[in-house]
Order: sequence, then C-alpha cells, then structure tokens
Amino acid sequence: MSKRITGIAASDGIGIAKAYRLVDPDLSFEKKSVTDVDAEIKRLTQAMSDSTDDLKVIRDKAAQNLGESEAEVFDAHMTILADPDMTGQIEQLIKDQKINAEEALKEVTDQFIAIFEGMTDNKYMQERAADVKDVTKRVLSHLLGKALPNPALINEPVIVIAHDLTPSDTAQMDTQFVKGFLTDLGGRTSHSAIMSRTLEVPAVVGTEEATQEVQDGDLLVLNGLDGFALVAPDKDEVHQYQEQAKQYAQERAEWRKLKDAASVSKDGKHFEVAANIGTPDDIDAVVDAGAEAVGLFRTEFLYMNSDKLPSEDDQFEAYKSVAEAMKGKPVVIRTMDIGGDKHLPYLPLPEEMNPFLGYRAIRISLDRQEIFRTQLRALIRASHYGEIRIMFPMIATLDEFRAAKKVFTEEKAKLVAAGVPVADKIKLGMMVEIPASAVFADQFAKEVDFFSIGTNDLIQYTFAADRGNEHVSYLYQPYNPALLRLIKNVIEAAHKEGKIAAMCGEMAGDKIAVPLLMGMGLDEYSMSATSVLRVRSEMKNIDTTDWAKVVDEAVTTCQTNEEVKALVEKHLQA
Amino acid sequence: MSKRITGIAASDGIGIAKAYRLVDPDLSFEKKSVTDVDAEIKRLTQAMSDSTDDLKVIRDKAAQNLGESEAEVFDAHMTILADPDMTGQIEQLIKDQKINAEEALKEVTDQFIAIFEGMTDNKYMQERAADVKDVTKRVLSHLLGKALPNPALINEPVIVIAHDLTPSDTAQMDTQFVKGFLTDLGGRTSHSAIMSRTLEVPAVVGTEEATQEVQDGDLLVLNGLDGFALVAPDKDEVHQYQEQAKQYAQERAEWRKLKDAASVSKDGKHFEVAANIGTPDDIDAVVDAGAEAVGLFRTEFLYMNSDKLPSEDDQFEAYKSVAEAMKGKPVVIRTMDIGGDKHLPYLPLPEEMNPFLGYRAIRISLDRQEIFRTQLRALIRASHYGEIRIMFPMIATLDEFRAAKKVFTEEKAKLVAAGVPVADKIKLGMMVEIPASAVFADQFAKEVDFFSIGTNDLIQYTFAADRGNEHVSYLYQPYNPALLRLIKNVIEAAHKEGKIAAMCGEMAGDKIAVPLLMGMGLDEYSMSATSVLRVRSEMKNIDTTDWAKVVDEAVTTCQTNEEVKALVEKHLQA
Repeated sequence: MSKRITGIAASDGIGIAKAYRLVDPDLSFEKKSVTDVDAEIKRLTQAMSDSTDDLKVIRDKAAQNLGESEAEVFDAHMTILADPDMTGQIEQLIKDQKINAEEALKEVTDQFIAIFEGMTDNKYMQERAADVKDVTKRVLSHLLGKALPNPALINEPVIVIAHDLTPSDTAQMDTQFVKGFLTDLGGRTSHSAIMSRTLEVPAVVGTEEATQEVQDGDLLVLNGLDGFALVAPDKDEVHQYQEQAKQYAQERAEWRKLKDAASVSKDGKHFEVAANIGTPDDIDAVVDAGAEAVGLFRTEFLYMNSDKLPSEDDQFEAYKSVAEAMKGKPVVIRTMDIGGDKHLPYLPLPEEMNPFLGYRAIRISLDRQEIFRTQLRALIRASHYGEIRIMFPMIATLDEFRAAKKVFTEEKAKLVAAGVPVADKIKLGMMVEIPASAVFADQFAKEVDFFSIGTNDLIQYTFAADRGNEHVSYLYQPYNPALLRLIKNVIEAAHKEGKIAAMCGEMAGDKIAVPLLMGMGLDEYSMSATSVLRVRSEMKNIDTTDWAKVVDEAVTTCQTNEEVKALVEKHLQA
Repeated sequence: MSKRITGIAASDGIGIAKAYRLVDPDLSFEKKSVTDVDAEIKRLTQAMSDSTDDLKVIRDKAAQNLGESEAEVFDAHMTILADPDMTGQIEQLIKDQKINAEEALKEVTDQFIAIFEGMTDNKYMQERAADVKDVTKRVLSHLLGKALPNPALINEPVIVIAHDLTPSDTAQMDTQFVKGFLTDLGGRTSHSAIMSRTLEVPAVVGTEEATQEVQDGDLLVLNGLDGFALVAPDKDEVHQYQEQAKQYAQERAEWRKLKDAASVSKDGKHFEVAANIGTPDDIDAVVDAGAEAVGLFRTEFLYMNSDKLPSEDDQFEAYKSVAEAMKGKPVVIRTMDIGGDKHLPYLPLPEEMNPFLGYRAIRISLDRQEIFRTQLRALIRASHYGEIRIMFPMIATLDEFRAAKKVFTEEKAKLVAAGVPVADKIKLGMMVEIPASAVFADQFAKEVDFFSIGTNDLIQYTFAADRGNEHVSYLYQPYNPALLRLIKNVIEAAHKEGKIAAMCGEMAGDKIAVPLLMGMGLDEYSMSATSVLRVRSEMKNIDTTDWAKVVDEAVTTCQTNEEVKALVEKHLQA
C-alpha cells in the first residue's frame, strides 16, 4: 500500500511522477590505505571526468534559462577540474601516502581553499575558494557514488522534494518537467508556496517529513488540491488520480472560458474578483486572467529596486502604466509598506526587537512626510490616466487615517492649483490588518471610501503569532471564528455606511474562505492572477442566502478553526 | 516665568527640590603643550587626590546600601589611583613631552587598558581594564572641572534628571533624598516608571527634553500626578505646589486608614483590589497594603534566578509561602511566561525575528510538557495551603486552553491517586492578552473559571505596536475606544457565564481607566502594592450606574484615545 504524507495545499493541481530529491547527500568518508595506487588514481580521473560532464550540461542549461553571464561560474568550475597543478598534487599524494582518492582530494583542495580564503583583500580570489569547494563536493559525490542533485539537470517529468525551495533553485529548473513540489517547511504564504502558484505547479508544503520519507525515484502522486502526497501508489491509485488530474485539466479549460464573464453568485449577486500585483510587469497576467480590478498594487518594488528614494516622475510612470493597462478598471495602490521585514539600504531605520510591531508603513510615512508627499503627488498625477484608488497600510487609529488624508488633500490642492490634470474624485481607503481597526470599523467606515482586509497581517496580530515563525505556525488560523467575527464586523460596518469592503490577503482566493466571505457580503476578492478564474468559477455555485446562514453558525456555534473548516466542507459537498 | 516640561505621569506625588543631573558630562579635551611642568604635575596630583576622596564616600555608601561585596570594586579603583607605577609614568610623560595632564593621563592609561584587554584568557585582568577606564574618567572629570554625577553621593534633597534610569543607578541612591525622577525616555511600563512606583518616588518620564532643558542645581517642581515639571518656578508656584504636596500627603494618610476596609463604590458595589507580585519577597508589601488578593504572581523569577530548571519542590515552597502569607485570600499564579524578551541560559529557544509574536509562555509549556507538568504539580500541591488559582498566559485559541486544562487534570489525578493532599477545587483561568481571545471571550467563558485581562500585551497586539519601541509608543492607547470595546466584551462575556473578570495590567490602577472599568463591572483590579490604597480610596467616589453611561458614550461616540480621556476627566471633575 502507498504511504501518505500530509501537508498544506499550497498550489492547485495533481502531479504524478518520480521523486527528484533536491537534498544534498551525506558526503562524509574515512581516510583509508590503498594497495593498488593505479586503480585509485583511475577512480579519481573517472570522478573528475564525470564531474566535467555534469558541468557541461549544467552550464548549457544555465545559459539557456538564466543567460550567459550566469553560466560563467560553471566555466570557472571546469577550469579548476582541468588544472594540471591541482590534479598532479592529488595524484602525487595518492602515490606517496597510499591513501584513498577521497582523502587525497580533500587534503589538496583544503590547502587551495585556505590559501584563497587567506587573501582577504582580494575578493576575486576569495570567490575562487567557493568555486574550489563546489568542485570538491561534486568530485567527492562521484567518488562516493552519491549523485548531487542539480535542478538544471532535470530533463524528465519529476516531483521535486526539498527541505525548502530557494529562488535560485527554481530559476535553474526547466519547469515543463516539474510536475509538483513537496517540501518539509513553509505555509501558504511562504516563498515556495507563492512561487509554485505563480509557476502554476501543484505544491504541498510544510509536511515536516517529505525529505525523510521519499527516496529518489519513488513514484509519487502529489495532490495540491487537498494537501497530500502518496508514495509508491498502487495501480488503482495512479489510475484514480490520473482521472482526477484529467478532470482538473478540463476544469481549467472551463475556467478559461470565464475570462470575460462577470463574477456572479448562484443567486445572481455580483462580486469583483481582482488581482494583486507587485510591479507593473505583473499586469499582463492580470489582464489575461480577466480580473475586474487590481485590488492591491504593492509599491515597495519602487523603493527596493533602487539605490535611492524613487523620484516622483519614476513613480508616476509606474502608476500611470498600470492605470492605463487596466483601461478604466479600478487599480488600488497601497502607499509604501517599508519596515517590518523590508529594509532599504539608503533609508536607515532603527534596529527593532519586534519589527512587525514596529516602525513601518504609514507610521514611517506620517513621520517622514517628504517621502509620503512625493508618493502621493505621483499617485494623484497618475489618477488622470485611469481609475486609481489610494490605500494606506497599517492604520491603527482614526488619528492616523485623518493625518494621512490631510496630507493627501494638501498635495492634491497644490497640484490642482498648479493646473496639473488630476481625477475629480480619488477614492481613499485603508488596509484593515490591525485588530484595533477591525474592532473599530464602524467609526472608520464614516471617513474612508473603502476597506481592504489584509488577512496575512490581521491573522498574525489577532493571534499574536509571526506568520514566518514555524514554531507558532499552528496559530495561522484563517477559519477561526474569532477572526471571522472581526472580518464580518468590517464588512457590515462598511455596508452600513455604503462603502466597499475588499480583501487582499491570502484568504481572498481560498476555497474554504470564499463561500463564507460571500455569505458575509464581501464585495471584492483580490488574489494572485492565477487564482482569478478558479474563484470566479467557484462563485457560480454559491448561494449567498444559504451561506449567510452557514456564516451565522460558524461565528456563533463553532469554537475552533477545524470546526469551521469541517462545517464549510460539509456544506460544499451538500 | 518658569519653563514647563511635559511628560508621562509615571508615579504619583509632588516633589520640589534642586535638579541633580545623572548625565555624563562631555570629557573631551585637546592635547596641549605646557611650559610650567611642575604646575601641571600638581594639577594631576590634585585631581587624583580628589578622585580618591570621591571614591571613599562612594565606597562607604555602596557598602551601606548594597553590602560589602558590592563595595569592593571601589577599593579596586582606589588601589589603581595609589599605584606608583602608573602615576610615575604619567608624571614622566608630562616632564618629557611637556604636554598637559589630560593627554598624559590618557596616553598612559590607554596602554594599561590595551594590555589588560589583550589578556583574553584572563577574565580577572579584563575586568581590571574596565576599572582603569572608570578611574581615568573620574580623574579626567576633576582635571576638566566637570563633576561626574554619582548617585551614591546624593546627600541633600534632589530631583534626579536622567536620560533613563538603570537598576544600578537607583540601587546606589539614598532614596530618602530623592524627591522625584524626571527622564527623557520611557513610558508608564518602563523600568524607570515601575521602579519609581515601587520606591514611592514621584516621577515624570518620556519628556524627550529633560536632560537638555534642565541644568544642575535648577529649582524644580515635579508633578507626578499630572505629568509635568516646572523649571525655575517663581515664589507663587512654589507655594502653590507646596500646598498641593501637603494635600497629597494628607490624602496618603487618609488612604492608610483604608488598609482593612473593603473596596466599595459610592453606590455600594463591592470590588476586589489586588496586587501583582514577582517573588515571594514582595508579599509583605501586599499584606501591608491590605490587598484583597494577589491578582498576578509572575513565576518567571523561579526560572530566571536559577542556572537550571527549578525543581518541583523549590517551586512548591515558593507557591506555598505566598498562599500561606495571604491567609486564605486568593492568590492567582500565572504559569511560566518565558520567551518574548525573557530568556533562560539553560533553555535554548529559537532565534526569532519577532519574539513578542513567537514561541513563548503557554506555547512553550504545551510543547515542552515536562516543564509544564513540573510546575503544575508544584502548584497543585501548594493548593492545600491556601486559595491558589492557576492562570495560563498567552492563550489564543480554545484548543490551547483545553490542552492546558487536560494536562492539569492529569497531574491533579495522579497526585490525588498518590494520596497527596490537594484542594478540592482549584480555579483555572487564563490571561486575556491576545486580541483573538478578547473577541472570542463568550466561548472561552464557558470553559474557564476566570479571566485576567493583561492590558500591557493586549494593547501591544491590538494596535500592533511593541510597547518597548519608542518609535511607536504613541500607539500605547489604553483609553482608545477600540480597546475599551474589547475589554467590555470580555467582562460581559465572563458575567454572562457567572465567571470572574479581573485585570492585571497597568490599566487596573490607572486613575482614568478605573472609573470606566467599574462602569463595565470589572470584578478585580490587580496593580502594584503601592497603588492599592489610592485606588480603594478613589473607588469610593465612583457611582457605577453613572459610569456605565459614561462607558456607553466612550465606546459608541468617542473616536480617539484623547476624546475618551477628556470625557473621563470631565466626569471626574463634575
């Protein structure tokens, strides 16, 4: 029977393929005496030649996927392998001391590494030390018969098993062959998870045991819809999931047909399905998915991809290009959320013990108003070219919202006085991501044009648990009735004042959460572009009157995250 | 006219005295040539002799206040001053190079410091380096005619001006002479503030400008009741505040009469005024103040004043002694709240980016159950000797409370089965200090025996602002209506299920907050022992029916922290 590994469903889809372990093997060995010196030298020569063969393939892949300049490091590796001085020394050591090739290799390369690393004022030579280490690792792996994983060498369908995935791992892969990711670490908001959704590769993360339980070449079924993998499935299981995968592919084809459709519930209520973007480059995918709005345009990229504060004109061009691409559909742009885990080399911020509870986002903007005013002027100018809305992050008190609005009003008046064309009415909203503002939504609703609930932060503060900290990840509870009550309160408060309630966190595209949010009447759902059509399709099956009743039960009767999840699943299956 | 410095009222009372700046003077100087070498050597000798005189006085004070062993460091300083080798070298340098005494002193002592610090494997000699630095600073201060502040030398009434106060600063002071503290940094929960309340010295903290605006010897009025200081007050002002101080002294005398009285509102409702303690030693002050309970016994001291996990017996003795001292009055003991900013050398915890949102308190207890079970056994055994109640910190979900209760039930059953005498019924409660549990109090109330609202953490998480971070200290808003709504929700939820609602944070003794909390019906108010009688006295003036109406206005009409504060002040004056 197959073995089941459960984790967190991080990216939709089903993959069936052999396992590819992206995990470094144990390369430890013992020093040994050898009698047949020639045979030992032959082992060494073979391992070096195999290593060179690897590197040729890796080099070509890297050149193809990443470009020539990124591939050059592998040329350097091949040069080291071809160096007669180093090779000669290793062979000599085998002959003189009659020791195994592993030990001789290690002793000689350690000397080279020590010399290069000792050249502390020569950065070039220090980098060569890293190269020698890499090459030694590769030759050792061939000597020990334990292949090093190399994502660039993947050339058949695989499911990648890893402790965690780094951006450089995925950059080297030819993703046409990657049928899934299965990792030990991570949650739905980890890098691995977000990237697998962007690449549209099924993923299950946070299993805690994948790298221990799966061997290279094991056949796997990866179910990114329900969050588990089967190791060594039997024929029936393979067949079952092949069918399910086929069905899912058909579903996706159906979803594509909804590109130009409205987002409507079973009982005919209209909603808005929107997309989150990080840079203007992301807008093509948003248009392609037929999203009804950009629900969150994060502006941090402007500050982070720069070596100084971005100018008003640079910002203006970025905002304008997105507004124009969306052709009159709303574009909600969030002002700078620097601080927390995002730092700028040119803007020194205080060292903080708890940066997520610190000086960040609107707290910096209100304190360093020259930065804030520059951004607002760029936004106000861009408002002439589309439907731009402005949203302030990390608002905790009415005082803060009022102060931000005042700065906006001043800058707008100046631009108007200068004759710069701007939109008559620019909607001003706020992120609801701090418990105080969720509790106080009725009063905020009188002064804002819209709310956007940022669930990633709201969950983190509501349960006092850093979402990046694996030791408290069990407290990331999007269905916990305490959280649902806060969200419901925000939506009702907005509607009482005739304002829009949106959501731009992870929850907005979540299969379990969306029916509940529709039952609460949430107006706009902003998610990664790849989820837009799935959610639009799922909305068609939801009767909002029925789900309003489920919501009531969830917030008054259910006591835990798991109870709400079970309740929703029961109703979805009914 | 006098100059007014405003800050945060951190400890009640009014002080009138001269300013004593506990701020290091600028000891920079320039190298100079001297012509009269003998005069220069005489300057040096005089400065060294003055330094020795200082140190004698400091040494005696320290021995008296802190004990002989703490005073020994000053003996070491005097030995250095008496060292003919060092003195000889400095004099020689003045003679040879004809340079000023400051420069010669610096050059010679720098050499000694470098040599001592170079002995990296000799901790004793490295400490001598620190001693030489201290001595150099003292001699330099005499050479430059800029007296070093020394808290041990205070021997007349003063108001101490400091950037911030450290525990070692205050340990050296003869507090009979200290009439007040005025600091640049800190809030109501900072070390300076807590300590000034413990010492019963009036304090105003967080002024941001005290050390800049006040000179040594300036006459000051310090008003710790209203949070300001007057620099160079005129005769009328001095008279006015002398009267107010007299009146306050009379009030305090009146309060003392309430020691054995019940805590009752104007309309005859009974409340409980309790005290917080950190160690069994604190219990005398609690009994002396006539507190009706220990509302919070923090147990971290057992773990922090130890080089290993405290044994069950050691814990048992500590809990038992407090239970017995309180003679049947309730003692609420909180299980271990390690993690966050509290670490143990023998219990390695993960490095965390946001420790306040991390692995701490009940999260550790439920994960490392052997530690938790030991503590619970000690608590259950101690329950036989008084009215012990157990409280779990940092509960965010019902799952966690249930898991903690299960462990308690198991350990109690084992002890009963073993024939150990334990109380029949031990009340189990939880801290409400995480927004999720405040929002979900109705469901928690069904399963707990009592709540204790921990306002310091609850405010920090509700506004997503680290209370120790000065850049976001403006978000410590105890009267913000969003926070008041959460507190009201917790109290009402408790009462609906017939359970007790207590508070053990800073707010529970706050003049503005207490009338509101009484209007909400909060049952127990736990604070520092020094505030107990004041609060009991203030309660006599509060009509709970009137204040229930003020509460309604505060949570439905008021929009900001300041509006609520103004509303309460208006009603208190009426």
